[in-house]
Amino acid sequence: MSRPRSGRSRPASTRLVAGVHPVRELLRSAQRVERVFLADSRERSEAIDEIVTRAEDRGVPVREVPRADLERKVPGLVHQGVCAEAEPLPLWRLDDVLARAEEAGESPLLVALDRITDPHNLGSIARTAEAVGAHGLLVTDRRAASVTPAAEKAAAGAFAHLPVVEVTNLVRTLAGLHERGVWSLGLDGDAEVELADHPLATEPCVLVVGAEGRGLARLTRERCDALVRLPMRGEVGSLNASVATGAALYTLLARRTA
Amino acid sequence: MSRPRSGRSRPASTRLVAGVHPVRELLRSAQRVERVFLADSRERSEAIDEIVTRAEDRGVPVREVPRADLERKVPGLVHQGVCAEAEPLPLWRLDDVLARAEEAGESPLLVALDRITDPHNLGSIARTAEAVGAHGLLVTDRRAASVTPAAEKAAAGAFAHLPVVEVTNLVRTLAGLHERGVWSLGLDGDAEVELADHPLATEPCVLVVGAEGRGLARLTRERCDALVRLPMRGEVGSLNASVATGAALYTLLARRTA
Repeated sequence: MSRPRSGRSRPASTRLVAGVHPVRELLRSAQRVERVFLADSRERSEAIDEIVTRAEDRGVPVREVPRADLERKVPGLVHQGVCAEAEPLPLWRLDDVLARAEEAGESPLLVALDRITDPHNLGSIARTAEAVGAHGLLVTDRRAASVTPAAEKAAAGAFAHLPVVEVTNLVRTLAGLHERGVWSLGLDGDAEVELADHPLATEPCVLVVGAEGRGLARLTRERCDALVRLPMRGEVGSLNASVATGAALYTLLARRTA
Repeated sequence: MSRPRSGRSRPASTRLVAGVHPVRELLRSAQRVERVFLADSRERSEAIDEIVTRAEDRGVPVREVPRADLERKVPGLVHQGVCAEAEPLPLWRLDDVLARAEEAGESPLLVALDRITDPHNLGSIARTAEAVGAHGLLVTDRRAASVTPAAEKAAAGAFAHLPVVEVTNLVRTLAGLHERGVWSLGLDGDAEVELADHPLATEPCVLVVGAEGRGLARLTRERCDALVRLPMRGEVGSLNASVATGAALYTLLARRTA
């Protein structure tokens, strides 16, 4: 992925990325990596060897540290013996994300998160969005989960490749996208139409996903061009937010490549 | 759901089910519930009121206990102020699961877990399997994640409705299913054919899912009637195990209802 042409960066402190997949993908991307820390151990896995090679190729310093030091850096995370310090997550302008889709000759496919607060869901959704080739992930900059080391771990490296756009006002952003021909499809268990049957599924669109339990905010729901649901055949009648988003994204991909 | 006609039960101790959704679904099912514990608090949510009403309707005792007692019962779980003691999870015979699909006039759709060890993935997969109307979930009884309170929490009540079959030898079970006209489709990122394009997707089938990272065991892979993959358009090239299973199940559902 090329670097964002108009990247704004949070004035944040150093970004910490932990785990084999996230660190490997970070080193494969164009994002700047300051240094890599390895837990000192007698044996190195193939995956760690690959990380060391990639770091050396890029001139990124690699330092062995006691495992306890690594644990202090990313408390509570399964770091798999590796962690990296990187530049703050580059943020994209929506215009640049759309321009990139156009340059690739692809119909824009975006994902917008409305009130998702769980870092694990945020990361898992980013991972799936990257896997289906979505062009960008829109996150709101207040009250929402931010891209923490836990989110990066759940994303398995997707944040190294998937353009992230921080939006101040999701409703206004959806209105702006509408003006530019990008339709917003809100995922809502109470919607009347199934996503797979909706004519907008093959158009340029942004899939809007709400928090588990609470769903979409009222204003977001009202702003969406259409509300769509996944088929439900069971008794429980709900899905995990990241599974629902994954099923919806694969439904969209199937419609768009049919 | 009717009770399993030939249920074997583990000689396990009491089953603990925590959280609003799991306890509500448990009370909505035919599974035996011994008692419900509520954290004592000044205010009760609507969801807790509904649980109390259902428990009273079934003659299940409800007891208020200090919140700390609840936390001791299900350490580390988000219990949302409610927990239930129930009979051990009823286990189904595969024959009965298939008979139930036949009685419903439906083409059997099963999910089999191969080496899934994470309770959260187990629960999340059960939730999605129940949501798409799968007829049963096959779990191996050794080295696999068992249905712990954490798995029941992630399943959001699905284990109250979804028939679970414990199998001793998954390879032999898949062979037996093959004899009875149920094809096994192994989900494998390296497969050549996409699930959505495979002719067996509309046949009676069992979706076989391996552990994240390690995938299907070699013998399981060799025994499957077909290996199938999901389309991948990104750089990272892998999905969370429960998201992959969810996307695959919705792909199967779409094919079977087209």
